[in-house]
Amino acid sequence: MTLAVGVIGLGVMGAEHLRLLREETAGATVTAICDADGERAGRLAQGAAVFADPLALIASDRVQAVVIASPDATHAGLALACLAQGKPALCEKPLAATTAESLRIVEAEVALGRRLLQIGYMRRFDPAYVEMKHAADAGMIGDPVLLHNVHRNAAAPDWFTGPMAVTNSFVHEIDISRWLLGADPVTATVHTAPGGDPLLITMETDKGQLVSTEVFMNARYGYHVHAQLVGRAGTVQMAQPAVTLTNGSLHHGHTYPENWVPRFRDAYRIQMNDWVRSVASGKAAGASAWDGYVATVVAEQVVSALQGAARVNLSLGARPDLYA
Amino acid sequence: MTLAVGVIGLGVMGAEHLRLLREETAGATVTAICDADGERAGRLAQGAAVFADPLALIASDRVQAVVIASPDATHAGLALACLAQGKPALCEKPLAATTAESLRIVEAEVALGRRLLQIGYMRRFDPAYVEMKHAADAGMIGDPVLLHNVHRNAAAPDWFTGPMAVTNSFVHEIDISRWLLGADPVTATVHTAPGGDPLLITMETDKGQLVSTEVFMNARYGYHVHAQLVGRAGTVQMAQPAVTLTNGSLHHGHTYPENWVPRFRDAYRIQMNDWVRSVASGKAAGASAWDGYVATVVAEQVVSALQGAARVNLSLGARPDLYA
Amino acid sequence: MTLAVGVIGLGVMGAEHLRLLREETAGATVTAICDADGERAGRLAQGAAVFADPLALIASDRVQAVVIASPDATHAGLALACLAQGKPALCEKPLAATTAESLRIVEAEVALGRRLLQIGYMRRFDPAYVEMKHAADAGMIGDPVLLHNVHRNAAAPDWFTGPMAVTNSFVHEIDISRWLLGADPVTATVHTAPGGDPLLITMETDKGQLVSTEVFMNARYGYHVHAQLVGRAGTVQMAQPAVTLTNGSLHHGHTYPENWVPRFRDAYRIQMNDWVRSVASGKAAGASAWDGYVATVVAEQVVSALQGAARVNLSLGARPDLYA
Amino acid sequence: MTLAVGVIGLGVMGAEHLRLLREETAGATVTAICDADGERAGRLAQGAAVFADPLALIASDRVQAVVIASPDATHAGLALACLAQGKPALCEKPLAATTAESLRIVEAEVALGRRLLQIGYMRRFDPAYVEMKHAADAGMIGDPVLLHNVHRNAAAPDWFTGPMAVTNSFVHEIDISRWLLGADPVTATVHTAPGGDPLLITMETDKGQLVSTEVFMNARYGYHVHAQLVGRAGTVQMAQPAVTLTNGSLHHGHTYPENWVPRFRDAYRIQMNDWVRSVASGKAAGASAWDGYVATVVAEQVVSALQGAARVNLSLGARPDLYA
Ligand SMILES: [Mg+2]
Ligand SMILES: [Mg+2]
Ligand SMILES: [Mg+2]
Ligand SMILES: [Mg+2]
Repeated sequence: MTLAVGVIGLGVMGAEHLRLLREETAGATVTAICDADGERAGRLAQGAAVFADPLALIASDRVQAVVIASPDATHAGLALACLAQGKPALCEKPLAATTAESLRIVEAEVALGRRLLQIGYMRRFDPAYVEMKHAADAGMIGDPVLLHNVHRNAAAPDWFTGPMAVTNSFVHEIDISRWLLGADPVTATVHTAPGGDPLLITMETDKGQLVSTEVFMNARYGYHVHAQLVGRAGTVQMAQPAVTLTNGSLHHGHTYPENWVPRFRDAYRIQMNDWVRSVASGKAAGASAWDGYVATVVAEQVVSALQGAARVNLSLGARPDLYA
Repeated sequence: MTLAVGVIGLGVMGAEHLRLLREETAGATVTAICDADGERAGRLAQGAAVFADPLALIASDRVQAVVIASPDATHAGLALACLAQGKPALCEKPLAATTAESLRIVEAEVALGRRLLQIGYMRRFDPAYVEMKHAADAGMIGDPVLLHNVHRNAAAPDWFTGPMAVTNSFVHEIDISRWLLGADPVTATVHTAPGGDPLLITMETDKGQLVSTEVFMNARYGYHVHAQLVGRAGTVQMAQPAVTLTNGSLHHGHTYPENWVPRFRDAYRIQMNDWVRSVASGKAAGASAWDGYVATVVAEQVVSALQGAARVNLSLGARPDLYA
Repeated sequence: MTLAVGVIGLGVMGAEHLRLLREETAGATVTAICDADGERAGRLAQGAAVFADPLALIASDRVQAVVIASPDATHAGLALACLAQGKPALCEKPLAATTAESLRIVEAEVALGRRLLQIGYMRRFDPAYVEMKHAADAGMIGDPVLLHNVHRNAAAPDWFTGPMAVTNSFVHEIDISRWLLGADPVTATVHTAPGGDPLLITMETDKGQLVSTEVFMNARYGYHVHAQLVGRAGTVQMAQPAVTLTNGSLHHGHTYPENWVPRFRDAYRIQMNDWVRSVASGKAAGASAWDGYVATVVAEQVVSALQGAARVNLSLGARPDLYA
Repeated sequence: MTLAVGVIGLGVMGAEHLRLLREETAGATVTAICDADGERAGRLAQGAAVFADPLALIASDRVQAVVIASPDATHAGLALACLAQGKPALCEKPLAATTAESLRIVEAEVALGRRLLQIGYMRRFDPAYVEMKHAADAGMIGDPVLLHNVHRNAAAPDWFTGPMAVTNSFVHEIDISRWLLGADPVTATVHTAPGGDPLLITMETDKGQLVSTEVFMNARYGYHVHAQLVGRAGTVQMAQPAVTLTNGSLHHGHTYPENWVPRFRDAYRIQMNDWVRSVASGKAAGASAWDGYVATVVAEQVVSALQGAARVNLSLGARPDLYA
């Protein structure tokens, strides 16, 4: 009656997923956990079985479904193992480090004939994005023609290298733009500010819509994501991300968080509840392996456009029927 | 490991509590339900035992904790039954219809020697109120001196009679003002617009703070609750209740809901999760039976002030040590 | 063709009026100025005649109309002198220090049989208040039933004594509330926070409407005036007083000024342009001597209510036909 | 002592300039007017001399300075006539219809050796843009690296042809972006939505900054201009263009105007006051003939980029010392 979930990886995101499963998710029990740091796993066990080997966790009878939150480089292998075991998994983005690896997973799932993988593009569950999509789908703004995205981090992590602004951050906009517009990008143009930050990336979709995204890794003032969808009859956009406003010291306003966790706390919670329900019902939801593949393949091609001034044609390959 | 919950009353609020327990609450299972309309109960059972008699549900071995969401007039009797059975209960407000009844429940709980009852003053779990209280408690606005409350309903229900603006609506402000300020009201003054709606109610607290509340039962434009807490160094207030903004037809803005359910959906969810955790841990949280009593006794005295122009002194009685 | 204006008093407000006349007002020429500090007057002359005696300025052939911005205690005498000379005057509020003096001016103007005096209640020209009144008069919010006013100063001036929160600050709300609602106040109730600041003043009008005003002399965080007018079908309120918003240091928002001058700069400018046009056309506009008298007489009675908890009945006397 | 101004062209903008000079501008007198429709001119004369021939007005002894608000095609010839007469002029944008004509005017003014022409790029006087520039110049947002512009018209006028979105609308962003950033654009890339509307134009400046502009001629919902300037330490943007907010019919928000006149009413007024003062003082201000030329030459080259997908290099020519 309650879903037995195993959690792999107990870093920042893994620990948050663990907390969400235990404190804010209906219908799930964490029966197994696994982390490279066995001591950390032990501290967080609370009665769950502790595995040293993630593949053993995936294979275990105690586990009906898996959350993959281990380092990015391990995602592909673990996702394939879940498919091999026939177990549903919620896999943190990115699905895989390369297009080739992503494609292999898509092919494995297609061969299996049913969707078991959901990729953790949590913005699809963010109440603001959901309301924006609802407004567009309900015809409230007319046909969508242009999407403005702003994605600002206070500071890039130390381990960030150049293309990661695209492969790590901009992938969120690739996914959410496809989801909001119901369309795939077909070209990309990149403009770069001095020092390579911020980037201004313009995409055209197969419906002719325009998607403009500012990716600013070192915006200093805080973590801030914004989007405005422009239609032929009106627009819909995120409100400022705040539930209270203060007056103090000649100033009116609200604060920003330093990173994405508080901003998308609701999205992560709703995603987890929805995933558990979707596993229980057998109806796949959220971002699919194909969506994860597309985010990766588009990002890879945008990286190639970083060098030149030209408009780059994007090629995605044919979407398998499984993801129709 | 999971809390066995029985739900009494499956009207608007009861059905929402049932949904929250099943879809958005960790660590709880609905094992029993009860409603005056047995057919409705049957439709919502999903495997839970259906009771015709709420007292039988409360007494059942299948039930560890109870949610009371039946008509207001039944709250007192069912709360007393839960105390008699030694079972924790989340009881929708009001605790009881009269001061005398409320006091009887408080006395029963005091005799028992431990807090089993939580009253459903869900605003204490609303993210905006929580942030306001945090700001005040953290000293961000200096000492709070004045609280502005606005409580607007689109239209009073048909069954509303005069004093219900106070006993049904204003009770929320009595409770949330006490909680925000950490103080009890000691006087009340009522001003009335033509036709008796809106009311403007001014209270003074035992710390000398002022609490101003507009209660407008027929504000027409929508359901809207607002609050601003004024301190000696600044203020904190609710932001507009919206996550998206639209442009359309020469207009910019957002919509209001028609009633309180969408506005306080998060508050109800968080309250339920928190209640289940608090029952599991044995540490009472939320509004206590004493808080429920105070809301009722203050409301009763404010009703008496409706007739005259005078400032009325409020008398609450002594707070038992159990609620210190 | 251009109006010859004399300006009396060159302090903060007088100097601003002088600047407005010279730099932002059509159809006026400053031909004479006067200040207790003759040196200051000399520095600001720019070709205007400098008078040591304000009565001589008023009587001078060079002066067709007068701006009175000298210390409050002098207003009454100078206003009477303008009436005696038959010259229009824009007199800074308050019209006079006492009800008796105010009444004497009203009687003098009534005896003269035409309106020559305009009192500088500049909020009547503030674009936000004007839009609020327009919305109400156009029926956009239904019948107005309640007005919420907030009047916050960063810090009371040194020379402020207790009742000046009423006689110096709250007079603005007395005037603007009468103007917005087209009604006179008939009762007042005062609630006082510890230390006498802030005040919460509730008035009822002769139409049964309620007016709630917070007057906070030491709000610390900045100068901030807010108002919301509540009608039976909707509300209209001031937007936050800012034309730009900034993001910086984990913060989003805008700044407040330290005093009223920047907040009401547009109002002062529009008032001055309107006054010059109204003098040229002979059609009196803005707040009349009667309005100035009412602000003073109501303030005086509210001060008397400061001591007790009771609702005080306000008495204004009969409005002369001249001001119908 | 007061500037004698002649106004040429009494259409929408010309009539507004006339009104501003008469009702809201200090130090100016309208002594002469001229319009192709002599009857309209007669109706608006109010004592000013009515000229049938604009060149006669420019040459007249009654006229010290000229406002040119006649049809666009006449601007260049009239501007040259003002230079020939040595009379200062405020010329509505565009300065001229082509780059060649614009350059001829610049050369004539350079030959004269002093700046007599101001082009009516009124946004430089809009309080929001002024505050944005002040914030940037004061270092409040760090070095500016990116400017987001949004320029939406409710509906394109009937007489609009394709490139006019650039030559008539986008010219405003060319000018204001140069002014805000203190930099000239060096490349432009254009993306086009289906049907050619909206356009998304990306420019790079000679400082490496990026300028992104949405130009939407048929945004339907209203006239709306927005800008956000992004710096290395923060951002500054326009607040929503409203002084009041309303609640009504389940909706909160404010209205947009149908065209630019109400949005930029303050800008036009301030521009006019500033122009009159600058003529009186002999110190040129506002957008110069060179600025007018640059807007035209950049627009012409952006039009050429409309056809292709390529990034276009912009060439402006050398700035004469007169405009250093
Ligand atoms: Mg993620
Ligand atoms: Mg409730
Ligand atoms: Mg004043
Ligand atoms: Mg213009």
